[in-house]
Amino acid sequence: MGPLVPRDIAAPIAHGGDLAVARKLFPAAPEPFVDLSTGINPFPYPLPPLDPAVFARLPEPAAVGRLAAIAAAAYGAPSAAHVVAAPGLQMLLPLVAALARPGRAAVLGPTYAEHARVAALAGHDVGEVTALHDLVGADLAVVVNPNNPDGRVVARTALLVLADRLAPGLVVVDEAFMDVGPIDGSLAPDATRPNLVVLRSFGKFFGLAGVRLGFAFAAPAITARLRAALGPWAVSGPALAIGAAALADAGWIGQTRERLAAAAQRLDALLVKAGLDIAGGTALFRLVRTPAAAELFDQLGRAGIFVRRFPEQPTWLRFGLPGEPPQWQRLANVLAAFRPPSPNG
Amino acid sequence: MGPLVPRDIAAPIAHGGDLAVARKLFPAAPEPFVDLSTGINPFPYPLPPLDPAVFARLPEPAAVGRLAAIAAAAYGAPSAAHVVAAPGLQMLLPLVAALARPGRAAVLGPTYAEHARVAALAGHDVGEVTALHDLVGADLAVVVNPNNPDGRVVARTALLVLADRLAPGLVVVDEAFMDVGPIDGSLAPDATRPNLVVLRSFGKFFGLAGVRLGFAFAAPAITARLRAALGPWAVSGPALAIGAAALADAGWIGQTRERLAAAAQRLDALLVKAGLDIAGGTALFRLVRTPAAAELFDQLGRAGIFVRRFPEQPTWLRFGLPGEPPQWQRLANVLAAFRPPSPNG
Repeated sequence: MGPLVPRDIAAPIAHGGDLAVARKLFPAAPEPFVDLSTGINPFPYPLPPLDPAVFARLPEPAAVGRLAAIAAAAYGAPSAAHVVAAPGLQMLLPLVAALARPGRAAVLGPTYAEHARVAALAGHDVGEVTALHDLVGADLAVVVNPNNPDGRVVARTALLVLADRLAPGLVVVDEAFMDVGPIDGSLAPDATRPNLVVLRSFGKFFGLAGVRLGFAFAAPAITARLRAALGPWAVSGPALAIGAAALADAGWIGQTRERLAAAAQRLDALLVKAGLDIAGGTALFRLVRTPAAAELFDQLGRAGIFVRRFPEQPTWLRFGLPGEPPQWQRLANVLAAFRPPSPNG
Repeated sequence: MGPLVPRDIAAPIAHGGDLAVARKLFPAAPEPFVDLSTGINPFPYPLPPLDPAVFARLPEPAAVGRLAAIAAAAYGAPSAAHVVAAPGLQMLLPLVAALARPGRAAVLGPTYAEHARVAALAGHDVGEVTALHDLVGADLAVVVNPNNPDGRVVARTALLVLADRLAPGLVVVDEAFMDVGPIDGSLAPDATRPNLVVLRSFGKFFGLAGVRLGFAFAAPAITARLRAALGPWAVSGPALAIGAAALADAGWIGQTRERLAAAAQRLDALLVKAGLDIAGGTALFRLVRTPAAAELFDQLGRAGIFVRRFPEQPTWLRFGLPGEPPQWQRLANVLAAFRPPSPNG
C-alpha cells in the first residue's frame, strides 16, 4: 500500500436494531418482529410536512444556523456558535477522538463500544476504566452519561471537576440518553470550557433514528474544527427541517419525558413480575441481569421479540420500550411464561 | 490547547446554492429567486412514497447492502464490496484524503475548491497543477472528471496510465458530474486497482442534493477503511430508500440524460445569442467567460437570477439549468437585454 496509512481496522461492531440478525436466529418467529434491541423512543415525533425543496436543494447555511440556534436553546448550550450539527451523533465520534493528539484514551466502561473503536482509529492507546478517578491522566477521557447500558449517572459537578483536573486533556461526555436523564444533569451549558465536548443524539429521544441527526456542544475553537472536518452540507435537508420543528416543540418534549418514564415503569413491572433483576437503565431501556439470559433471549426471540444481548457480558439483556399495545401484550405473554432456572437447577 | 492537535482551519469556502447570499446582494430582486448557482438537475427524481419506518428506525445493514448492490450495478462498479455509501460525496472527501500518509497532494485545477482544503486538513502539502502529467510524483492526486466548472474531460485510459505511474500513490477521481459525462468515461469499473478511489454524487444528477448521498468505489481494502471511518448508520433511512429506487430506475436515468442534454443546448443558445463565450461545462452547467462577468452577474441578480461567480476568476460565471418555463423566460429576458461592453470601452 506504500503511502496509504497502514492501520488495522477492527471488525465492525454488532449493534442493536438489525432485524436481519433476529430473522436469521429465529426464522420461525411471528412477524413483524418487536424490536426491543435499541434504546429508541417507540413513539416518534410526528413528522412535519416536508417541502420537496428540502430533498431537492443543497441544505443552506441559513437553515443550519437556524437549527443550531434552536438546538442551543433546547439543550441549554451557551449559543449557536457552541453547536455543531452532524448526520448522527455516531458520525461525530471519530472526529471528536481525532481532536486530541494521539495519546492515552480512557473510556469509562463498560459502555457503548464505538468510543473505544474510534479512539483506536484516531491513533490512541485505548483503555477501559471502571471508576471516574481512573480517567485522570488521560489525553482523551470519555464518559457516557447516563451510561448505556447500565444507566449509571455521573453528577455534572463531578464531570466538571474531572475536566479541570484533566486539562488540557479532552473530556468527551456522550449524553445520547440525557433527554431522559436527571434534570440539570447535562453539561451542554458548560460548553464554554476549552477541553470539553458534549454530545447529544436527536434520533433516540425523538424516535427518529433514521433521520441521522446529532450534535456536539463545545467552545467555538473546537466547534470550528469539527465543522471544518464535517465540511459543508453535512446535515440533510429533511434532518434540518425535522430537527428544527421537533427541538422547538417544548410541549411534546415535556409530554414525551413523562410518557417514556411511565412506559419504563410499566416495563419494570413486567420484568420484576417475571422474577428478573433490573440492573439499571434509563427511561429508554432497562438492563436485566440474569444467569438465564441466554434462555430468555431465546424464548423472546422465538416469540418474535428481539432484545439486545452482550457477547462480553453473557448475563445481561437490554430491553427497549415496546410501543403499541400488541407489542406489550406479546412481551407480557413471554415474560409470564418465563421461569428462571432455580439456582441449584 | 495542549494535546489537542494544533491545526489551522481555513475559513469555510463559499459555494453555490446559498440564496441568503443572493438576497443580501440583491434585496430588491423579485422572489422566488431562480437559483442557477449550482450544477444540480432542476428536474428531481420523483420521491417514492417513504415508509415512516425509514425515518424512525436505525438504518439496517441489510438496506445498506441492498443500496450498495444497486449502486454497483448502476455505476458499473465490480461489486457491492467495492462500494461505500456516505451522507453525500462531500463527506467522503476528508476521509479519502486521509487514506494517504501526509505527503505531497496535487490537484488538477482550477477545480472544486474543497479538494485542496480537505487535503490540507489531512496534513498534506497541497499544490494545484494544470496538466495531468504534473500529477506524477504526488502521494495523493485528485482529478475532477468531468471537471467543475470548465467541463474538461480526461480520458479513462489516461487516468489508468496515471494510476499505474503514481502507484503506490493514491489517485482520486471525483466523478460528481460523470452521469452526464462521456459514455464509458467512468473509472468505477476500474475500482479493483489498489491505488484508485472513484467518487460519485447522487444528488446532482438525480436533483436531490438535500438527501445527502454519495459513493466511493475502490478496492475492498480501501472500502473497508472508509466504512470504518464512517461508522455504522452513516446514510439516513430516507437516503437509502430514495437512492435504491432512483438508481434502479434505468428508464428515468436514460430519459434524464437526454432531457439535460437538450436543456443544456437550449441554455447554450440563449448564451450565444447574448454574445457570450461558452468556455466549457457539462450538461448540468455551462461556464461563461466574459470581461463583463461582474456586470452580467449584477444584472442577473437584480432580476432575481443567481449564478455562480468565482472570486479568483473574475471573468467566469457558471450557469446551472433553469427548470420551469418562467425561469427560462426570466433568464431569456435578462440575456436579451444584456449587451457586453465593447472591447474598446
